[in-house]
Amino acid sequence: MDDRHAIGVDLGGTKILAGVVARDGTVLRRHERATPKDAQEHVLAELEAAVAELLDDSIAAVGFGVPSPIDQRRGVVVGCVNIPLVEAPLRDRMRERFGLPVGLENDANAAAIGEWRAGAGRGVDDLVMLTLGTGLGGGVIAGGRPFRGANGAGVELGHVVIVHDGRPCQGTCTGRGHLEPYVTGLAAGNAAREAFGPAADAHRLVRLANEGDRTALGILAEIGRYLGSGMGSFVNAFGPELVVIGGGFGVAAWEHLMPSALEVMRREALPPMRETVRVERAALGTAAGLIGAAFVAFEALDAA
Amino acid sequence: MDDRHAIGVDLGGTKILAGVVARDGTVLRRHERATPKDAQEHVLAELEAAVAELLDDSIAAVGFGVPSPIDQRRGVVVGCVNIPLVEAPLRDRMRERFGLPVGLENDANAAAIGEWRAGAGRGVDDLVMLTLGTGLGGGVIAGGRPFRGANGAGVELGHVVIVHDGRPCQGTCTGRGHLEPYVTGLAAGNAAREAFGPAADAHRLVRLANEGDRTALGILAEIGRYLGSGMGSFVNAFGPELVVIGGGFGVAAWEHLMPSALEVMRREALPPMRETVRVERAALGTAAGLIGAAFVAFEALDAA
Repeated sequence: MDDRHAIGVDLGGTKILAGVVARDGTVLRRHERATPKDAQEHVLAELEAAVAELLDDSIAAVGFGVPSPIDQRRGVVVGCVNIPLVEAPLRDRMRERFGLPVGLENDANAAAIGEWRAGAGRGVDDLVMLTLGTGLGGGVIAGGRPFRGANGAGVELGHVVIVHDGRPCQGTCTGRGHLEPYVTGLAAGNAAREAFGPAADAHRLVRLANEGDRTALGILAEIGRYLGSGMGSFVNAFGPELVVIGGGFGVAAWEHLMPSALEVMRREALPPMRETVRVERAALGTAAGLIGAAFVAFEALDAA
Repeated sequence: MDDRHAIGVDLGGTKILAGVVARDGTVLRRHERATPKDAQEHVLAELEAAVAELLDDSIAAVGFGVPSPIDQRRGVVVGCVNIPLVEAPLRDRMRERFGLPVGLENDANAAAIGEWRAGAGRGVDDLVMLTLGTGLGGGVIAGGRPFRGANGAGVELGHVVIVHDGRPCQGTCTGRGHLEPYVTGLAAGNAAREAFGPAADAHRLVRLANEGDRTALGILAEIGRYLGSGMGSFVNAFGPELVVIGGGFGVAAWEHLMPSALEVMRREALPPMRETVRVERAALGTAAGLIGAAFVAFEALDAA
């Protein structure tokens, strides 16, 4: 097998994280730059610059994790909510620019692939990963392969109903009572402001909980209960061996969320999964997405 | 390809439905007998009798759809809720008895396979089927293959949470607010008795709705709303092209459930699925399960 490296790029709402990644998932070099907010051409140029910064003769392929449904057939980014990319032909553009095989993936799927190949999910064939950041991303590995759904866009696990007719979603989602508005950093920030005043946010909430503040602990335990409903649903719907909880908020609040989340998850999950399913904290931190994007690049290379 | 036929057997809580099925899904002969309730050995003997009744030289394989998780590796029926089968080594037993390749499948998955190969889902690679009978069964075809989850047991779509901390489930399920207790014939029967007295049931509820009774129409519309929450969740989680609604209650109440179910489903589903996903009534009626079981038999034959 080709033992050259791949560049993985994780496009986030705030930052572009890029890294040179070896076949075993080791990150050899990293690079970070701000995500432009003004125009599609500017975003594409910065993505090119992030790759060019790391490019050398060791690089055999490039992969991108993007917070959008991906049209895999055409290699197109369908549309991001908070980044100016719509119907962007990223694969063709990057192929032409760098002359290398290019892989594209939804960002939450990329994170799941990263944890599966090089993190908490190593050696596991079936896992569900939930990325709890500002929003909620979900990725599924099923039968040793990324599960991408009918349109290849990936799964939208933040948008399953857990409270019929409940809290409204935002943006292009018209749904009610989806998992996302109950368990994200955004939800935690809202609850924190309600309890501790307008200056509070999710970071402060977690810090207060770490210091033993009962109100903060109560808020996170309640968020954990909703998360447990979602986790139990996914255990029953996908039958994974492992659930991985990642994302900035998920990793930071892990110890406060998990007691109640596991209690509700085990109540909701059917036997035998109730007893057998494992839950782990993501191991790769914020690098999961770029590492996963690099594995998608290797996939494109091996298929080329 | 071998053009002999297969026998498909659908083991239900009340009846064993068996049929001789051609490669194109046509049912050539059918047979039906009661499901014993007393002992495992009696159930296995009746399953053998149902096959023996239809067996001739045209039969190349036998398949069973069973309302239980299936351990595909060992060919074992893990355990049914309302039929005395626990850790039943059905595959080995039937192989020895008939000397033919034997396929096993969860009953809801079998129904999904039937509709996919020979019914409403013909030619579709990604579909979700919901079987609304007394209980709720779910089956998923993903990327042109039955999706069976990590343990090979199939998916349990009746047991996703749609009402956090809601109605309790029954039997071995300790969950709260799962889809099943809101949208099944059992749920409809309970609502019917509440509205029309102890003699009412789901059949009468549907009949009254057919006659234009406003109370009955309102109950079914409300059930449809809950169903829409579940359908929207599955559209987002699996990204199917098609959702098929089957089962005795689902097919009978279809026209009364669908207006509100589609309204809520389209509210919950994300773009672009919101616009593109199709919803159809099951085409094979009560034969979906046995036809699907026969396709599982053909799969076992072709793999042998």
